[in-house]
Amino acid sequence: MNDPGGTRHHGQGSIAHPVQALIQDIHARAARLNEGAVANYIPELAKADPRDFGIAIAFSDGHVYETGDSRKPFTIQSVSKPLVYALALKDRGRDHVLKRIGVEPSGDAFNSISFDERHNRPFNPMMNQGAIVAASLVRGDGIEERFARVRALFEAFAGGPLGFDEAVYRSEDETGHRNRAIAYLELNAGMIEEPVLEHLDLYFRQCSILVTARDIAVMAATLANYGVNPVTQQRVIPVSIARDVLSVMATCGMYDYAGNWQFDVGIPAKSGVGGGILATLPNEVGIGVYSPPLDALGNSVRGIKVCTELSRNLKLHLLDRNVSGRTVFRRIYRSSEVRSKRVRGPEETKILEANGQRIAVYELQGDLAFANSEQITRVALQDADTTDQFILDARRVLSADPAAHGLLTRLLQIMQARRKNVIVSVTRPSPALDDLVEVLSGAGALVEDFDTALENAEDRLIAALTPGTRDAALDLSDVEVLGRLSAGDLDRLRSHLEPTRYRAGDLILREGAPADRLMFLTRGRVDVVVALADSKARYRVATIEAGNMFGELALLEGGKRTADVVAATDVECLVLTHEALDILSEQSPELASHLVFAVARSLAERLRRATREIAALAR
Amino acid sequence: MNDPGGTRHHGQGSIAHPVQALIQDIHARAARLNEGAVANYIPELAKADPRDFGIAIAFSDGHVYETGDSRKPFTIQSVSKPLVYALALKDRGRDHVLKRIGVEPSGDAFNSISFDERHNRPFNPMMNQGAIVAASLVRGDGIEERFARVRALFEAFAGGPLGFDEAVYRSEDETGHRNRAIAYLELNAGMIEEPVLEHLDLYFRQCSILVTARDIAVMAATLANYGVNPVTQQRVIPVSIARDVLSVMATCGMYDYAGNWQFDVGIPAKSGVGGGILATLPNEVGIGVYSPPLDALGNSVRGIKVCTELSRNLKLHLLDRNVSGRTVFRRIYRSSEVRSKRVRGPEETKILEANGQRIAVYELQGDLAFANSEQITRVALQDADTTDQFILDARRVLSADPAAHGLLTRLLQIMQARRKNVIVSVTRPSPALDDLVEVLSGAGALVEDFDTALENAEDRLIAALTPGTRDAALDLSDVEVLGRLSAGDLDRLRSHLEPTRYRAGDLILREGAPADRLMFLTRGRVDVVVALADSKARYRVATIEAGNMFGELALLEGGKRTADVVAATDVECLVLTHEALDILSEQSPELASHLVFAVARSLAERLRRATREIAALAR
Repeated sequence: MNDPGGTRHHGQGSIAHPVQALIQDIHARAARLNEGAVANYIPELAKADPRDFGIAIAFSDGHVYETGDSRKPFTIQSVSKPLVYALALKDRGRDHVLKRIGVEPSGDAFNSISFDERHNRPFNPMMNQGAIVAASLVRGDGIEERFARVRALFEAFAGGPLGFDEAVYRSEDETGHRNRAIAYLELNAGMIEEPVLEHLDLYFRQCSILVTARDIAVMAATLANYGVNPVTQQRVIPVSIARDVLSVMATCGMYDYAGNWQFDVGIPAKSGVGGGILATLPNEVGIGVYSPPLDALGNSVRGIKVCTELSRNLKLHLLDRNVSGRTVFRRIYRSSEVRSKRVRGPEETKILEANGQRIAVYELQGDLAFANSEQITRVALQDADTTDQFILDARRVLSADPAAHGLLTRLLQIMQARRKNVIVSVTRPSPALDDLVEVLSGAGALVEDFDTALENAEDRLIAALTPGTRDAALDLSDVEVLGRLSAGDLDRLRSHLEPTRYRAGDLILREGAPADRLMFLTRGRVDVVVALADSKARYRVATIEAGNMFGELALLEGGKRTADVVAATDVECLVLTHEALDILSEQSPELASHLVFAVARSLAERLRRATREIAALAR
Repeated sequence: MNDPGGTRHHGQGSIAHPVQALIQDIHARAARLNEGAVANYIPELAKADPRDFGIAIAFSDGHVYETGDSRKPFTIQSVSKPLVYALALKDRGRDHVLKRIGVEPSGDAFNSISFDERHNRPFNPMMNQGAIVAASLVRGDGIEERFARVRALFEAFAGGPLGFDEAVYRSEDETGHRNRAIAYLELNAGMIEEPVLEHLDLYFRQCSILVTARDIAVMAATLANYGVNPVTQQRVIPVSIARDVLSVMATCGMYDYAGNWQFDVGIPAKSGVGGGILATLPNEVGIGVYSPPLDALGNSVRGIKVCTELSRNLKLHLLDRNVSGRTVFRRIYRSSEVRSKRVRGPEETKILEANGQRIAVYELQGDLAFANSEQITRVALQDADTTDQFILDARRVLSADPAAHGLLTRLLQIMQARRKNVIVSVTRPSPALDDLVEVLSGAGALVEDFDTALENAEDRLIAALTPGTRDAALDLSDVEVLGRLSAGDLDRLRSHLEPTRYRAGDLILREGAPADRLMFLTRGRVDVVVALADSKARYRVATIEAGNMFGELALLEGGKRTADVVAATDVECLVLTHEALDILSEQSPELASHLVFAVARSLAERLRRATREIAALAR
């Protein structure tokens, strides 16, 4: 019988979030394992249902994914050892504790009763010998106060209240002869002090606290977070103690399997005979698994399987090159704030002003691995309701591991199903990104130069909102800057203008030439191009569309052109030369004044837009 | 006798680079240790000078710091084991090698001859038993070809040619009876195959290759870099093999001291009886130490001391929260590209245009730890010759550990000595940055809001270049926008303007009021202020100084004011109202045209500057 809360799946609509789908897959695969046996050395534990199976993963921002019986309570057992060790360090200080409990793997099987004879102490706090000494070091006046402190610490780790299994506790107490033997050996050797039976009582109680896979995942994430609970944001233990606990888990957490565990799985972990496994990858994630059947070493069979699969699939290995940068988002903005280098006509500009927020740009950076790719995925899915197009600007991404590939591929599939457009820009791809580019191309995400990506996204947005094509030449009155001139002014102006046509590819204005004309573009598109300082390469600064003027900056300031202007398509424009402007100024000073006023107004508008863009980019 | 190359110190002028100073300090402290004895089981090794002592640290960008006898060659001995293990993995594949050599610490002392009986294999490749099997797995036709392959791999790891010590090799061969015994036990147990004597020969040769502390540091950095040599940029081994080698070093590299080493030092390492220690912290640094006297476990006494101190001082511990983001620089620009919100008069603007490159802004981000703080330090020192003022924009820094504090403090001291100004901006400091703020304030680096920092840096630059103060009111002709009007035009314009004074704090223009006037500022400073959308807080958009106009944008476009303008000091300005402009246009249309032209020109100039700023910010 499962707790109904334990089967909650945190899906996104009909298609699950990539991480959700992943743990469900792993759950399904591991559920087929029928090896192992439920612990029976304590009668109460033998009552556990071997089919119970829950998985939870908690991230350092407090988000938890869970599947199966992740809300089903069970006794924490040995998973309590790293936590009580942390409390001992807190209560007594590092030197005091290290003198009494070593940090060396014993090399012995989990059920041996061996001690570090040379130092007269247990080898480490992850085996019963050391854990009993750790419990003896917990401060407090009497058993109730001491246990209340242990429980309060566990609850702070879990971020919520925890139950207690009276039946298991009584059963532990009644059958715990082996642990009593250990404690008396320790008392005999001077490793612990009286009251031994109270210390043992505390130890039995700490093992009988009830947790769920979800609780364990949050506890593990608190360790991964170096002592700050990611859900409550409370600091539970200092950074230095978290480090020490992680170190001991890394070398001693998995009994005499430590070397292989580090080699193959590489996630500091602790298991308990209740069927729980707590695994914690510093700075990344906390994992909690619950499945009662145990292998010969006393570890949950399915728990081991889950940790192994997570490590392999997600590259969650302490020594894998999986440095998930914490700052994966360099900047997020909308195309209403920053536009492509295409200066569009007034119609399209209006559409983009009004709807630009439907295009999201995520500037990504650093090394993409599991934890930060999950973050990207989550943010994108949250934004999907209000966003049609996503540009993942990966120009500053240094590397992406297979876990990142997997999550991004899955994200693309979800977005495709939701008819969202995702474009990834990876300019000058390094070999470190070859795999990413391949994965993205394969998944149908266009991989483009960033500005092209933004421009195409704008095009798509405009096309969706204005069906039908327009390629007719514009009238002078359609030129944005002249929109407020009277019909009479426009007619008079027209008589001073010279209609000119260019073929695609023609050079219209040349860098270095005197600035002696202003052009009103009525058809087609021109590119503004400069030579890069350090090469012969040409760099497109902007593309200007019909409905705009160009060449006005240099004309206003005098001097030389600072860029080439090249016809991108066949082009028609109306040209106002310097001489024509002089004649106009003499013949109709008022029109000249209106014209310059209009130009100034257009510049003011562009300056306002540039200021907004600076504000977005300065974020 | 030391190699003179071994005493090179990479200083910066008279004051050493922080990392250089640090390893020199550690070298000096560790040099006082006189415990331990030079290895004497091979007669040739006993000839080593116990005073020899070199340290080198290599970063993942190939930069190497070194001190002492870091260029003195010695035989690599057991430091060769992880490298030959890597070659075996490369030659035979993971499964093949894992079947023949375990990855579990033996729990036994370094000189025991024990095997993993259950799997009929040596426990791990870091002890002689496993290393001899690893050597036996190296491919090649005959000893010469096989050794050439080993040597070529070592040289690829070191990034240069390596010598060979014939005398040590012969000595190893003559006295290596124990290793012969091991090999024959292995042959007897079926753990290796013939030709055993050739395998042993290869093993003796690999141990006799000559390296320096610097070589070992680069080798370690190649492992830290997951197989890519940071100096040559060559990929030496695949990522997966680097991970496996690091895993085995982490658990088995320090014999039966593995748990304590992981707990206290936490840097995967391997030592050799020649006195070398190779230590490697993934994604961070490679460390090489050479000092012949060994402790009872066969590890270099000073080498252990150096690793321990580096780990403590620099937080170089695998499980410390020292994720050095690889992208610590978010953006670097000069104040010639991006200026503060203070719109200065024409004089000062000219100075900043010409000299703005003397102010450098480093936008930092993420978690600051040893490796990336070293990068900041190095870049700053490289820039110091051409830069007077540094703004470290730490608004996006999430945390900074003590190693980062140390390096930054030292950097500030050096800059102070060189009379450079360093300002750190940390707005809305989180508790995670409290220590950083304290360290910086203590070190005399102003900690300011970013825009204030930039503004103050500009002020300092201007003050340095223009001694003397100017507070006289400007004439209309000094207003930048009107600079090109004729004297006659200016006089006529003056008659339409209304001189107005405000006291500091007066509201000059009010958000929402009709835009009916343009102001030429001739004395003092005004702030442009908007209310933030989500709060009652006021936000300074810009500060405008005498010599500029304001209010023109709204005037040109008509409509309402979009911001308040408040007098920041006592202010004098000349006001052109809409009515006055209308009268002016009627009476002297040409002047009106010139005026609007001048305004348009000023807008064009500002637009050009904004475009440059966008280009810098979009980086």
